[in-house]
Amino acid sequence: MLHCNENYLKLPGSYLFSTIAKKVSAFQAAHPDADIIRLGIGDVTRPLPAAVIEALHRAVDEQADAATFRGYAPDLGYAFLREAMAANDFQARGCDIAADEIFISDGAKSDSANIQEIFGQDCVIAVCDPVYPVYVDSNVMAGRTGDYDASTGIWSRVIYMPCTAENGFVPELPEQTPDILYLCYPNNPTGGAITKEALQRFVDYANEKGAVIIYDAAYEAYISDDAIPHSIYECAGAKNCAIELRSFSKNAGFTGLRLGATIIPHALKVRVQTDGSGREVELHSLWARRHGTKYNGAPYVVQRAGEACYSADGKAQIRGIIGEYMKNAAFLLDGLKKAGYTVYGGEHSPYVWLRTPDDMTSWEFFDILLERAQLVGTPGSGFGPHGEHYFRLTAFGSYENSVRAIERIRKL
Amino acid sequence: MLHCNENYLKLPGSYLFSTIAKKVSAFQAAHPDADIIRLGIGDVTRPLPAAVIEALHRAVDEQADAATFRGYAPDLGYAFLREAMAANDFQARGCDIAADEIFISDGAKSDSANIQEIFGQDCVIAVCDPVYPVYVDSNVMAGRTGDYDASTGIWSRVIYMPCTAENGFVPELPEQTPDILYLCYPNNPTGGAITKEALQRFVDYANEKGAVIIYDAAYEAYISDDAIPHSIYECAGAKNCAIELRSFSKNAGFTGLRLGATIIPHALKVRVQTDGSGREVELHSLWARRHGTKYNGAPYVVQRAGEACYSADGKAQIRGIIGEYMKNAAFLLDGLKKAGYTVYGGEHSPYVWLRTPDDMTSWEFFDILLERAQLVGTPGSGFGPHGEHYFRLTAFGSYENSVRAIERIRKL
Repeated sequence: MLHCNENYLKLPGSYLFSTIAKKVSAFQAAHPDADIIRLGIGDVTRPLPAAVIEALHRAVDEQADAATFRGYAPDLGYAFLREAMAANDFQARGCDIAADEIFISDGAKSDSANIQEIFGQDCVIAVCDPVYPVYVDSNVMAGRTGDYDASTGIWSRVIYMPCTAENGFVPELPEQTPDILYLCYPNNPTGGAITKEALQRFVDYANEKGAVIIYDAAYEAYISDDAIPHSIYECAGAKNCAIELRSFSKNAGFTGLRLGATIIPHALKVRVQTDGSGREVELHSLWARRHGTKYNGAPYVVQRAGEACYSADGKAQIRGIIGEYMKNAAFLLDGLKKAGYTVYGGEHSPYVWLRTPDDMTSWEFFDILLERAQLVGTPGSGFGPHGEHYFRLTAFGSYENSVRAIERIRKL
Repeated sequence: MLHCNENYLKLPGSYLFSTIAKKVSAFQAAHPDADIIRLGIGDVTRPLPAAVIEALHRAVDEQADAATFRGYAPDLGYAFLREAMAANDFQARGCDIAADEIFISDGAKSDSANIQEIFGQDCVIAVCDPVYPVYVDSNVMAGRTGDYDASTGIWSRVIYMPCTAENGFVPELPEQTPDILYLCYPNNPTGGAITKEALQRFVDYANEKGAVIIYDAAYEAYISDDAIPHSIYECAGAKNCAIELRSFSKNAGFTGLRLGATIIPHALKVRVQTDGSGREVELHSLWARRHGTKYNGAPYVVQRAGEACYSADGKAQIRGIIGEYMKNAAFLLDGLKKAGYTVYGGEHSPYVWLRTPDDMTSWEFFDILLERAQLVGTPGSGFGPHGEHYFRLTAFGSYENSVRAIERIRKL
């Protein structure tokens, strides 16, 4: 009998950012003249770096000539991009990652949602709380998370690792052992960073327990302190237990261009359970099979754009863009403090995480900000139960809008 | 206990086209001077149409300016592209499909692989045999296909619908009722087309049995007879039972640019089984949720390129490109006939499907063609058991190479 994947029906409401978009549209429709400032969704606003624009034009011209035209991309991505990433993002930091351990994709959102697919149906996941919703929602869709308790926002088969002001937004090791452990640092949504020592504890724990860490490094370009790791592979033993996700969205502004990568070291192996052989398989081979069967690669022109991010010009231009966003973050952080808010993040991250005033719920504060200040942020509770009473603002607006946002908040 | 998705381990060998690529690489390495002609993988060779190139350059320039920069795309794709598709691909043919029933994606391969995800785990699929491997392989990965018999190439929980010369490569209605029925016309790999009457029989059957048809229309631009349907929605009742997949790869040459679309009419509903409510849900809402949660849209510049395909210049240029490829197809068809081969397809499709000589297996013929004629095609058996003793050649090469290919085949 035909039926749908009813796991989808367990998902509460719609995807967080779709809900916000609908609320904002409704407000705008009711108040056509309202001058709304959007510091909600983590979307960049600055144009693509000049080096990227040049690379795009060049690649487009190649596609106009039969002699240089490129059709289907290689399964894992073009070597020119994978080699540039291996050299710059990993080997330059002492991480022993080879180009063929890098899979090019259309972005970290797709990869972070799809990566669960190569694991067994009954694996148990652990997530930070609050957390980027895609990690949990993609596992809900796969039927891996048990039942949802609407009163608490808790799934019965998910291990939650609370990230609070008390633990500096870096969780304790979980008491119950997970199979798959999602970590994102610098963190979305709290803006917190993790020290190498704290990350090493997670790596050692995963290796001891036989768990896999999915490490989302989408915001590593915002790290402003050399002691903070940019990659989990800076930790000893990480190649045996960790998959890392990379994005071009938040550093080079590729949110509308779509490019990311997943790193799966060959050393990362899992024992086969069903055939009694006890043999080990590389997770690399499973992800390669997924790429070969279910995906046809990021566009050639976009892969060339990614390569340009590693040129001297590209690197300098990206540093400039990040500097601008971090100027906004510093302004938001300072302005909120002066307005009496308790704030976190914003130092190694484009996200400022603030405590709602007067113990308001996150959505109450969202509505007040939208209605009385025409300012859009993201309710912390949208990221999980421990996000309640928190609120996220992003530094991805213009400097002018960051200044105006603080002015409006101070007037509240 | 951590384990991998062991359904992946059931897949025999590697993805067909990866295997071919490896064989060809090995031959080229052993014979560095060999002048190999590639008529295997269905990848285009002609450059992008001028209208598309212009649109790409314009869109790239927009991404260089903060005033026109675009970040995250709307969940379902940009309205300008969805409206162009709705008007040109559907409404102009009398199909009542609205823009909001169209989901823009990075290509029909991803969509045809991912679409199974919105269906229940125990749904039974039916496929044509031979068939594009992605339909079955993606269901294998999802654990829906039972066990594989390596001696026959048959999965125990898949319904196979043989497509043979006898039935004109359009199968009979299946005896056992499937939940999900994959159809692709004009067909890959056989090159066969389907009449509106024959397609209507499948639509009526699906509506009667409560099954869903996944209709892959990736090759519709090659139809040269007005009586042959370009869309399944030309059939009465199709909106109640059919999902259609569209591609920009084979018409406008987007294999390296990546753009496609999935059409799910709001009228297509499935009854909920687990909660006892008996309510119906739109498959549209499930796919929308998947897009919102697991995907971040095709690049803005690529969606603008897609829009350009519907301009007057774009349409004329695409007709020109298809005309060139179909000239190759006609040449291959004629040349093979004159060389004594039994051939099919090539009239409404860029694929020529030939019977191997002397009852050779498909892979035997592949090896002989590669070694003795330095010509790469695709073994029919790679598409399923009923593809054995057949072989696919594509018209996507240059005219010169099509001529040289026939010369080499005649010398064999």
